[in-house]
Amino acid sequence: MGREEDRTTVGVVGCGYWGPNHIRNMLSLEASGTVHMKAAVDPDPARRLRIRDLYPQIEVSDGVAAVFSDPDVDAVVLSTPTGTHFRLAGEALRAGKHVLVEKPLATSIAHCEELIRLAAEHELVLMVGHTFEYTAAVNTIQGLVAEGALGEVLYVRSLRVNLGLHRRDVNVLWDLAPHDISIIRFVLDAEPTHVTASGNANVTAGIEDIVSLNLHFGEKAMANVIVSWLDPRKVREMTFVGTRKMLVYDDVAAAEKIRIFDKGVDRPSEYDSFGEFPFAYRYGDILSPKLDDYEPLREQSSHFIDCIRLGKRPRSDGESGLAVVRALAAAQISLRNDGRKVALADPAVLDVEGSGAPPFAD
Amino acid sequence: MGREEDRTTVGVVGCGYWGPNHIRNMLSLEASGTVHMKAAVDPDPARRLRIRDLYPQIEVSDGVAAVFSDPDVDAVVLSTPTGTHFRLAGEALRAGKHVLVEKPLATSIAHCEELIRLAAEHELVLMVGHTFEYTAAVNTIQGLVAEGALGEVLYVRSLRVNLGLHRRDVNVLWDLAPHDISIIRFVLDAEPTHVTASGNANVTAGIEDIVSLNLHFGEKAMANVIVSWLDPRKVREMTFVGTRKMLVYDDVAAAEKIRIFDKGVDRPSEYDSFGEFPFAYRYGDILSPKLDDYEPLREQSSHFIDCIRLGKRPRSDGESGLAVVRALAAAQISLRNDGRKVALADPAVLDVEGSGAPPFAD
Amino acid sequence: MGREEDRTTVGVVGCGYWGPNHIRNMLSLEASGTVHMKAAVDPDPARRLRIRDLYPQIEVSDGVAAVFSDPDVDAVVLSTPTGTHFRLAGEALRAGKHVLVEKPLATSIAHCEELIRLAAEHELVLMVGHTFEYTAAVNTIQGLVAEGALGEVLYVRSLRVNLGLHRRDVNVLWDLAPHDISIIRFVLDAEPTHVTASGNANVTAGIEDIVSLNLHFGEKAMANVIVSWLDPRKVREMTFVGTRKMLVYDDVAAAEKIRIFDKGVDRPSEYDSFGEFPFAYRYGDILSPKLDDYEPLREQSSHFIDCIRLGKRPRSDGESGLAVVRALAAAQISLRNDGRKVALADPAVLDVEGSGAPPFAD
Amino acid sequence: MGREEDRTTVGVVGCGYWGPNHIRNMLSLEASGTVHMKAAVDPDPARRLRIRDLYPQIEVSDGVAAVFSDPDVDAVVLSTPTGTHFRLAGEALRAGKHVLVEKPLATSIAHCEELIRLAAEHELVLMVGHTFEYTAAVNTIQGLVAEGALGEVLYVRSLRVNLGLHRRDVNVLWDLAPHDISIIRFVLDAEPTHVTASGNANVTAGIEDIVSLNLHFGEKAMANVIVSWLDPRKVREMTFVGTRKMLVYDDVAAAEKIRIFDKGVDRPSEYDSFGEFPFAYRYGDILSPKLDDYEPLREQSSHFIDCIRLGKRPRSDGESGLAVVRALAAAQISLRNDGRKVALADPAVLDVEGSGAPPFAD
Repeated sequence: MGREEDRTTVGVVGCGYWGPNHIRNMLSLEASGTVHMKAAVDPDPARRLRIRDLYPQIEVSDGVAAVFSDPDVDAVVLSTPTGTHFRLAGEALRAGKHVLVEKPLATSIAHCEELIRLAAEHELVLMVGHTFEYTAAVNTIQGLVAEGALGEVLYVRSLRVNLGLHRRDVNVLWDLAPHDISIIRFVLDAEPTHVTASGNANVTAGIEDIVSLNLHFGEKAMANVIVSWLDPRKVREMTFVGTRKMLVYDDVAAAEKIRIFDKGVDRPSEYDSFGEFPFAYRYGDILSPKLDDYEPLREQSSHFIDCIRLGKRPRSDGESGLAVVRALAAAQISLRNDGRKVALADPAVLDVEGSGAPPFAD
Repeated sequence: MGREEDRTTVGVVGCGYWGPNHIRNMLSLEASGTVHMKAAVDPDPARRLRIRDLYPQIEVSDGVAAVFSDPDVDAVVLSTPTGTHFRLAGEALRAGKHVLVEKPLATSIAHCEELIRLAAEHELVLMVGHTFEYTAAVNTIQGLVAEGALGEVLYVRSLRVNLGLHRRDVNVLWDLAPHDISIIRFVLDAEPTHVTASGNANVTAGIEDIVSLNLHFGEKAMANVIVSWLDPRKVREMTFVGTRKMLVYDDVAAAEKIRIFDKGVDRPSEYDSFGEFPFAYRYGDILSPKLDDYEPLREQSSHFIDCIRLGKRPRSDGESGLAVVRALAAAQISLRNDGRKVALADPAVLDVEGSGAPPFAD
Repeated sequence: MGREEDRTTVGVVGCGYWGPNHIRNMLSLEASGTVHMKAAVDPDPARRLRIRDLYPQIEVSDGVAAVFSDPDVDAVVLSTPTGTHFRLAGEALRAGKHVLVEKPLATSIAHCEELIRLAAEHELVLMVGHTFEYTAAVNTIQGLVAEGALGEVLYVRSLRVNLGLHRRDVNVLWDLAPHDISIIRFVLDAEPTHVTASGNANVTAGIEDIVSLNLHFGEKAMANVIVSWLDPRKVREMTFVGTRKMLVYDDVAAAEKIRIFDKGVDRPSEYDSFGEFPFAYRYGDILSPKLDDYEPLREQSSHFIDCIRLGKRPRSDGESGLAVVRALAAAQISLRNDGRKVALADPAVLDVEGSGAPPFAD
Repeated sequence: MGREEDRTTVGVVGCGYWGPNHIRNMLSLEASGTVHMKAAVDPDPARRLRIRDLYPQIEVSDGVAAVFSDPDVDAVVLSTPTGTHFRLAGEALRAGKHVLVEKPLATSIAHCEELIRLAAEHELVLMVGHTFEYTAAVNTIQGLVAEGALGEVLYVRSLRVNLGLHRRDVNVLWDLAPHDISIIRFVLDAEPTHVTASGNANVTAGIEDIVSLNLHFGEKAMANVIVSWLDPRKVREMTFVGTRKMLVYDDVAAAEKIRIFDKGVDRPSEYDSFGEFPFAYRYGDILSPKLDDYEPLREQSSHFIDCIRLGKRPRSDGESGLAVVRALAAAQISLRNDGRKVALADPAVLDVEGSGAPPFAD
């Protein structure tokens, strides 16, 4: 183990659903001598009691001041409601703390840009919890696409649905689609240029619980993403259609999360208007590659600590968080305008503020 | 068995993929004494030879004239390319034959209306091969919705994808979505009011092979339909989300094609802005009802013959075929206009002609 | 097409469940000019009528005499109840006809040997309908094992269960296990040396409807086979555990019928009583090879005709049929003797007569 | 919360695979004020360090003396190798501690009886960790069978296989089959009368890694259990065939762990030798009941504490542990004697000592 002064001291803000997982993973990093999981914050007494029972060694408080003003604390993890990200991350950065914040980074482009600016000014790490970018499955897919194993990716289809918590502070687009957008950007290594989105608010007026989102990547590729809180089964399934191979990624499968289909259609080299169906179909083997078995949140926590200690830029940095918010903001405009196609470069995207929820629900 | 003059004499036009199935089913109805499967037509010699080998008792010819001018023939089944439906169905009706035509009925609203008019004028049965309306699964779902077992249906999600034949005469919207539209209309007993559609033409320029279609039923319900010829797996899956229960219909499952989930979210009776999540979630049993086991095409053939013999209106009549084409035409406009929302009542829908394929592909 | 005198003329005896499939496949071979599907026999008038309706070109009669005494008929397919195999195959061979008989070949070793002797004496083909030996899946597995891709096969597990027809003439061992025994012999290229069998007769007294059968291949390998007519689901699943790889074959899967797991345990080269767990586990990729898509019964029919025309010995010849019956007879002894281990070389096996059904059920 | 003196103080012996789960569950019971999770024991320094890191509040020692002689400790949980159960449980009971011991209770009938005697003599709770008896799934099945919903259970089939740890101290029968035997006894509320078992030792000489076990319940019912450490997939599947309904329990399914099939065969009331197949098959709906969602080990821990505090007899008491060991001992004789049928009442069963492993592997 390293000396105490060598360790990165961490505070976790928000002990609801994800917070305790952050604490547990940071604690498991203590064994390597690089981390000291010191403090946790939550306004809710029951949650604080639960943390104390489980981990009596951690300092628990009811407000962020105790952590943000503690000179021992080097870094904070924010797992708080979306609407608080901008304010809390800003305070933490201004207090000189490295910040890992849950997705989405903030609820407007301007807020994202301000956080990026603050991190740069104070020379601090700003990282967004795009957790799927730290899974073995998504990294395997990204590697396959990068090395051309699928050929050119023409189409991505994603289904992320379940009977879910109907939130008041964000709609299902802002709640679930950040995962899809961050995965697709990471795998394709490309930015969407246009989006269309349609949806319905079935349970709470004004808050969509079902959204169908199309991401267009210029003329190159298209992705369809369906997110829903109103579905009988939990489905987390993405299909990547390439010119050479196709891939299905089923995140809820216990085994064979990824299957690569040696299937495809070979386009004729030149268009032959006389011949019929001059395509060669390929139906080949199916390969399910072995994936490393680790907890993605631990990989993400470890990456955050590495970036702090080695002065590296995180894979899911502020710019990445901004790109996801830009796509969400454009989709939000489409969603509220009959599904019309919205360019991410459209100036109206800059004006989107909020996260799909009506103001009174803040 | 009935006397010969009591039987409905049938000719099948088009012996490609579906034609032989129509012939086989009509032959199996001969045993009941109601049908005489007399003649088959195909311009392709190899197909004619195949029919002759299998069924030497059937008269096989290379053109429709032999059948349309045969006074013995009471009814024809048209399983020919989409672009020929209007012309051939029109000729058959004018020749006094009852007509069962494969979906879609025609490629424009005007053509559909003309066929409906002709059938009425000649007092003949005009039926469209919306085969899924004759499956045990879809009829079970329709019954459950009609009796209110699912409550109000809020949302339908359909996935109809596989690595498919890339056609030159229709795009994937006109090829596959007629099934989804006819099923959803039949189950919801409602007409879509607006549609949006996005897609990509990956293999053949100008012919979309992937389309995401949204059907809006006023403020009441929404359906998302994804059709694709470019997918590694064959998926035929529909999810119906109701206020009381949810239902998943997997048409490629060997068993348990339908599962009814006693799951849902109970909306609060009045909006309570103070309480958080005043919803009651229900997670209950899952029931997979036993379905009758029969071949849908045989049921459809039998219904066609019944309608002829009893003077009944078919379940999937000309009006039903027209309604499907109207939705396709509106979707086609949206598809070619950046996914903008198109009302089915929009006059521009009347001008759509073709089936998603560029003119030169006719 | 060949000249008429060049064709092999075929009669099918028994038009119940499998007979019509034999007829259909023989008819489809007519196109190649090698087969003439001439006659069918069944004592049941309804079945004869059904064949006449479907295939008016076939001569249909109510007794075997018409076919066995027809000098035009070169070969017969027997798809009749197990108890009739010996008598009918014997008559056909004595009448100079090549014989393809459904499994099992007969109900005693002596009967099998007599049929083999008759076929040799008359220089005729005697083939048993071990249909699975003609599937793409089983041939792929056999090829993988033969080339050593799985290493040494240590263990085979087979599950062949469903809610099935409770037969009166055979128990579930004689009804279903011939498939497993023929597949395992074919794949391992080895004969079982000993068997044990346990079972229960739940529905009909004296006729087991559930049997667990163990086949021992000397010290080399072991196979467990469970056959049942009393199971809620249809399962046809075999697992082959090799020293290098493992393979799962799911015959009811629509896709991915075979999956090869690069998983195993490497035994230490010498036994080390001090070290704990000196085994290296391998968890690797999973590969689902593409299988050719054809109807196994057509492949089997075609093989039968080829053997007749080219004077070849069938893959599933009389000796193969005898080997399966020998294993069944030994298992029958174990089943009726508290599951004790029975050697296939045990002289008592020669005395087994019948097929698991009490005499009065004949 | 209760006063300190009211709490049951617990020590956990063995911190390998299951030990930490026992500790975590006992800690979670502390919140109810009934438990004090005080001490943990393991001879391995790395395991002790891990416990200290996770739970600094727990006293950790390298031998049982510290716990067995601690007057504060009321109860111990033993999750140590099978071969140590008898000695450690005996010491603990003689030291006046209540004991929860992992399955199997011991390695001979005499040892089990001695532990039962000790517990009775000292008026202490002796409980065996038959964890599945505390799952929602098994309790649901037990309830359905008890109320007659399945009718008379004729047959049980269980498959418990995976690529597993090849143990040196027990064979796969003693490692995995205790689960099946305890579940089947619990669900059927009956004791097996006879067993047969066949198996193979593929990896380590003398230690079977694949076993097929048949349990006979008089003339009433039969169960087949297959356990294996040498299988490509993890399968935990049990099928219960009743006269009224059939049930499949898939423990590795994320959802729909239990499915009840309204399928069956109605036996004719009297035997009719003239009619053919006088059975009525039922193919009906399939129901997957909602199961409560809790951690079985927590339920088991809670039951142990309740029994101590309320002086109750545990569901899986010493007698239950003995019954499982009796079946294992009889199966061990069959396994080593060519699969011959062994009565549980056979005196030879009393002489079985060990757990399927050769003596040198102790």
